[in-house]
Amino acid sequence: MPVRSSASALCRLVAFLAGCHLAWPALAQATAPAIADPRVLEDLVAANRILADQGVLDGFGHVSLRHPERAGRLLLSRSLAPALTKADDIMEYDLDCKPVADQNRSSFLERFIHCEIYRARPDVMAVIHTHSQGVIPFANSSVPLRAMFHVAGFLAQGVPVFEIRQHAGLSNLLIADAALGKALAATLGDKSVVLMRGHGDVVVGPNIQVAVYRAIYTDVNARLQAQALALGGQVTYLEKEEGERADQVQQQVVMRPWELWKQKALKP
Amino acid sequence: MPVRSSASALCRLVAFLAGCHLAWPALAQATAPAIADPRVLEDLVAANRILADQGVLDGFGHVSLRHPERAGRLLLSRSLAPALTKADDIMEYDLDCKPVADQNRSSFLERFIHCEIYRARPDVMAVIHTHSQGVIPFANSSVPLRAMFHVAGFLAQGVPVFEIRQHAGLSNLLIADAALGKALAATLGDKSVVLMRGHGDVVVGPNIQVAVYRAIYTDVNARLQAQALALGGQVTYLEKEEGERADQVQQQVVMRPWELWKQKALKP
Amino acid sequence: MPVRSSASALCRLVAFLAGCHLAWPALAQATAPAIADPRVLEDLVAANRILADQGVLDGFGHVSLRHPERAGRLLLSRSLAPALTKADDIMEYDLDCKPVADQNRSSFLERFIHCEIYRARPDVMAVIHTHSQGVIPFANSSVPLRAMFHVAGFLAQGVPVFEIRQHAGLSNLLIADAALGKALAATLGDKSVVLMRGHGDVVVGPNIQVAVYRAIYTDVNARLQAQALALGGQVTYLEKEEGERADQVQQQVVMRPWELWKQKALKP
Amino acid sequence: MPVRSSASALCRLVAFLAGCHLAWPALAQATAPAIADPRVLEDLVAANRILADQGVLDGFGHVSLRHPERAGRLLLSRSLAPALTKADDIMEYDLDCKPVADQNRSSFLERFIHCEIYRARPDVMAVIHTHSQGVIPFANSSVPLRAMFHVAGFLAQGVPVFEIRQHAGLSNLLIADAALGKALAATLGDKSVVLMRGHGDVVVGPNIQVAVYRAIYTDVNARLQAQALALGGQVTYLEKEEGERADQVQQQVVMRPWELWKQKALKP
Repeated sequence: MPVRSSASALCRLVAFLAGCHLAWPALAQATAPAIADPRVLEDLVAANRILADQGVLDGFGHVSLRHPERAGRLLLSRSLAPALTKADDIMEYDLDCKPVADQNRSSFLERFIHCEIYRARPDVMAVIHTHSQGVIPFANSSVPLRAMFHVAGFLAQGVPVFEIRQHAGLSNLLIADAALGKALAATLGDKSVVLMRGHGDVVVGPNIQVAVYRAIYTDVNARLQAQALALGGQVTYLEKEEGERADQVQQQVVMRPWELWKQKALKP
Repeated sequence: MPVRSSASALCRLVAFLAGCHLAWPALAQATAPAIADPRVLEDLVAANRILADQGVLDGFGHVSLRHPERAGRLLLSRSLAPALTKADDIMEYDLDCKPVADQNRSSFLERFIHCEIYRARPDVMAVIHTHSQGVIPFANSSVPLRAMFHVAGFLAQGVPVFEIRQHAGLSNLLIADAALGKALAATLGDKSVVLMRGHGDVVVGPNIQVAVYRAIYTDVNARLQAQALALGGQVTYLEKEEGERADQVQQQVVMRPWELWKQKALKP
Repeated sequence: MPVRSSASALCRLVAFLAGCHLAWPALAQATAPAIADPRVLEDLVAANRILADQGVLDGFGHVSLRHPERAGRLLLSRSLAPALTKADDIMEYDLDCKPVADQNRSSFLERFIHCEIYRARPDVMAVIHTHSQGVIPFANSSVPLRAMFHVAGFLAQGVPVFEIRQHAGLSNLLIADAALGKALAATLGDKSVVLMRGHGDVVVGPNIQVAVYRAIYTDVNARLQAQALALGGQVTYLEKEEGERADQVQQQVVMRPWELWKQKALKP
Repeated sequence: MPVRSSASALCRLVAFLAGCHLAWPALAQATAPAIADPRVLEDLVAANRILADQGVLDGFGHVSLRHPERAGRLLLSRSLAPALTKADDIMEYDLDCKPVADQNRSSFLERFIHCEIYRARPDVMAVIHTHSQGVIPFANSSVPLRAMFHVAGFLAQGVPVFEIRQHAGLSNLLIADAALGKALAATLGDKSVVLMRGHGDVVVGPNIQVAVYRAIYTDVNARLQAQALALGGQVTYLEKEEGERADQVQQQVVMRPWELWKQKALKP
């Protein structure tokens, strides 16, 4: 192993360890959106790290937040693996998905998922797009995803599937423009989760903690349902009313797992 | 292991046990129930950590112990993710599920699971409630959970399923009052495990080590059975008598895995 | 968290870290069997640690070695979780399963598995008993375990299933005496693996590395076969001749994964 | 991050890269192939480590690169578990699979997979052979592997299965000579992946990053498809045109997961 290579490895290591500390002052001054409450960016970074740590996101996928002070704006990382996100990587977009600053940084091709859902759903404050491995089998199957337990009661309102062929024919399957974003938002309707055939899902919530919770438990619920179906007997799912009642309670206790996930994901 | 490195490991351990840098001395004096044998609280904390480390509990679920000196009392953490439990988080309740002290701390909504089982089952010294992912498919399926191997012989006495709709109609599925706790205890009967449709399970034991062992191997057994059924052939289960004989032996060797799980879960 | 508890945790930590170093001189002088080549005990300890690290053994199961200098003797840990085994825990037994020394230490109840297989099979130098989770579904199913790939070619000679009911009726399922050990050895015959209904498996080899390799890949192969069957199509298995030819090659390259597994399992 | 701690992390890193305390300077001078761009060997080492870290390779399997300066040569590690590969372990071979130097080091028996594919496919710059556990069930099943999502769009061109019995009868299943290498290359044809019955797969790409990406997502896709089939409904796969369009985009974003995987795999 030549010396140059070890030195280069050291540089990479230092960069990596530095990346674990959210404040990296010089860069942060240059690029992080100005928001009065510093916890907003911290929570968005934590959401990225949590979803990667929990295996819901891998090198792909993204998490956004409606701007807490300007409802027509959203906060989303530059194009980057979610596990590597730092506060300085967060960019601000308008609802046409144009970056407010930092035009020279690369944006996610599929940012239109976020812009069009925020436009269509004033109640939504956070949007997550995943290729979650529990979920994709249901995205491609004629078997609908249904709520298995009270923790995933939000699924009992129904989980629509978006078939991009109906809007774009035989495409690259990406939501890479506003028209496809609008079509996806229309399929989502007033629900919490929409599956995307051949692709993954989108999960929304009234705040970042609930959205992260839903993304994680949508994946868990899908695996539980697959296992229940494989047993070969009859499966009982939550009724819509059970799901609504359970979801009300679960939204109130969401900080319990959030703190646990956050500690684990941000552990140096 | 050089001294410097051991000292550093000790620092990390102390920080970890102190609850991830929360201020601890004042709280510790204020809240831990007075019990003559300090190992009681240590074991209850270890049980929480073990079940989280083994993936049987996530941010939800709880573990309790009948008070070793007062049979009409039980020990249960305040509302908290089990992986974060420390001795000072343990509260003392009477069998009406009223906290003996610490009324200003938040309690688990579902503490009635514990109170009513201790009331109905004098032989039970420890109760665990989980959303264990191996188990839920069976909780929702018409296929009964059955004992696959001698390690889970306690399942051969039968595993009842609690359908909350029979007691509360379309509810939020939580055991959040004494009436539902009593109904659940009645369905458990004299068994070791009861499945809860759309929810999880409850596992009981004559001591904390056996209860933890049963919660872990109920989950393992469920996964083994699901896999065996998926093979498509005929599956042979333990007969009731095999289960009883096996359980007698396994209760005697329970400290072997307990020590292993504990070392792993408490490793700094 | 009271001081006493932290101190106790420190003791446990030190004990744990000390346990990672094979030589623990004072104890070793007292109890480790005298063997000319020190690598023999090191390999047996490594085998225990590897199988625990790879998830083939949990708190239960055991690994033995025929004594390299006295063919009528075997080396096996005292009753202990395999992940915690150190050289001083190894005991020497005769083929009647009587300990040569250390009569005051506790022995595995099922040591008769080992004694009777060494008696019946002069070619066997290492024996492993597991509750391996990939394997148990096949132990309880009418679907036979078959060789899926060249890495597990040793399975192509056939994998018998031991039904203890034929020998002991409705028992605790343990091989806890010489008669059951002999019956199990007879079912194993000249094969490498025997499944035990409601229990696990036993794997043998001409040396410790090959036995460990077979225990690990028996589990992997079982999972692969379960997955292949679940696809619903026709599955092609290795023919006996393919398995024999593949096994000859694989036995020659067994040190490649062994070194990898050992590094990982013994990493402090 | 205090200086002392960074220094310690650096020591660990250097020790790690140096190959776990083997003496390295002498060997490094003697054996690493001379290549103008040092990143070439770094990437090949990283590919080995990434595939091991991601669970696609275990103690077996190998990764090669066409020599960037001499198209009739390839770079491949000596016979070694991929997780342990260092730059000095890389050897240079001609397309007859003869080592250019280092004739006294042991070579992989199956290096002919690589030589014959580079000979048959001028567009291929990297070749990976795995026993990837998601893939083997499909290698042995009559159910074809098909593209489940845009991330694995490269599978939509079709995934042939190589049946070695058609070329070697009942063999040890290894591609251990040029004739079998040629037959395998012919079955691969112009595709990206070929499954090998009773064995594993081979994945190729126009560069090392794309090949690694494909090996990982071939395994992920196989698991997703198995799960979708187990749901029991109808499954929609990517059409060929969808796969081609998706693959074009994905090849452009391959550095995003590569950097993530590399950081994780090389973390000390």
